[in-house]
Amino acid sequence: MKIGIYGLGRFGSFWASLMAKRFDVIAYNRTKREFDLKGVTLCSFEELCQADVIFLCVAISSVRGVLEKMAPLIKNGALVMDTCSVKVMPARQMMEILPPDVQCIATHPMFGPDSGRNGVRSLPLVFSPLRCDEKRIAFWLKCFRESFELDVIEMTPEEHDREAAFTQGITHFIGRVLGELDLSHSTIGTTGYRSLLEIIEQTCNDPMQLFYDLQRFNPYTHDMHLKLNESLNDVLAKLDQAETGE
Amino acid sequence: MKIGIYGLGRFGSFWASLMAKRFDVIAYNRTKREFDLKGVTLCSFEELCQADVIFLCVAISSVRGVLEKMAPLIKNGALVMDTCSVKVMPARQMMEILPPDVQCIATHPMFGPDSGRNGVRSLPLVFSPLRCDEKRIAFWLKCFRESFELDVIEMTPEEHDREAAFTQGITHFIGRVLGELDLSHSTIGTTGYRSLLEIIEQTCNDPMQLFYDLQRFNPYTHDMHLKLNESLNDVLAKLDQAETGE
Repeated sequence: MKIGIYGLGRFGSFWASLMAKRFDVIAYNRTKREFDLKGVTLCSFEELCQADVIFLCVAISSVRGVLEKMAPLIKNGALVMDTCSVKVMPARQMMEILPPDVQCIATHPMFGPDSGRNGVRSLPLVFSPLRCDEKRIAFWLKCFRESFELDVIEMTPEEHDREAAFTQGITHFIGRVLGELDLSHSTIGTTGYRSLLEIIEQTCNDPMQLFYDLQRFNPYTHDMHLKLNESLNDVLAKLDQAETGE
Repeated sequence: MKIGIYGLGRFGSFWASLMAKRFDVIAYNRTKREFDLKGVTLCSFEELCQADVIFLCVAISSVRGVLEKMAPLIKNGALVMDTCSVKVMPARQMMEILPPDVQCIATHPMFGPDSGRNGVRSLPLVFSPLRCDEKRIAFWLKCFRESFELDVIEMTPEEHDREAAFTQGITHFIGRVLGELDLSHSTIGTTGYRSLLEIIEQTCNDPMQLFYDLQRFNPYTHDMHLKLNESLNDVLAKLDQAETGE
């Protein structure tokens, strides 16, 4: 079985090297550069489209374009899995754009080269079969769970995005808001304040593109922004009330 | 030297027991209840006013009333130290309301019965002498540093409040805003999200009164709210721009 990787950015390179521990891996990157990835063979776009399984490791906003280019060339019965941080949009695009005899599973490996530096054991991967035969689903569930020892969480793209908006999405949003302020270590910083600085660190080092994509392409983000705004106004109203109630 | 404690709430009881390890301690609480504090003798308000050093362990909003009751009865040359979480307001009130021959130091022990459960060694205490002779300042600096092994930080009330608004104040504000949402542990929670839940835990367990007082009586809080709001609008504008710029 030949595994193809589309996109050798920071995450794609990491994912290609990981897959190469277990499979024969070919990889395509739109921009030509030098890559030194053990067990990964660079290939043309046409060659990639002949792989048995193709992982998309591109920005959420690039998925549609890649699928449109891939659709006429991809081989019958291939399996495509995306790895995006939102799931509803790329899942719908795979189902709409890829030919009906191409199978698709939406995935979200919730880790990357930083958190997976010392191995990926027990790290979470969200897994949503969209159009795939049972045998193949079982194979990949077993592979992620047993060969890579990942914590595989099965949920629908809708479940994923709703939950992600109120976990990862809200964290990145708060992190970026706090990141605009000039907060830094303080001699009078409390334990809670140290957690606040941690949030900035854990969100503001990611590329701005990921932040935009997480916020714009998750359909539940708008609801999260509204609820956050309501909550902010509630707290301010309570403070006002406490003040005038004296 | 007799040390008096005004207020045996949760923090006052903790502080009285701590001081009793080193000094002869008397304590007064407005509401009569049973107290079982080793080395602490309950006394009347009149007796408390005859102590050599009086610590105020009351809510920020109660400081003025206590000082007004105390002013006509307090003995000449006594030293009063408050322990409030904001410093500009109680410092000004001590200077204005207490007779000029009464000395005052503003303090903020940045810990309490929870964080000091296993001892107070290395915990921070903010120390601002307002009207006090050098010998006495030196005595208390040495006492806090050497007998109680605290990390004593000397700063003015203004410096404290400005820094506290953008550390403790912003943390409590964000914590309360997040606390209004129904966030909980998630199987797809990232490390950053766990820090977010920690902030809620570390702020929403404190009494609501402390939150109100921190926000209302720190003169720099208003600036913090404005900057936070600006930053929030900046991030939303950038998201809008990224969307329409596609």
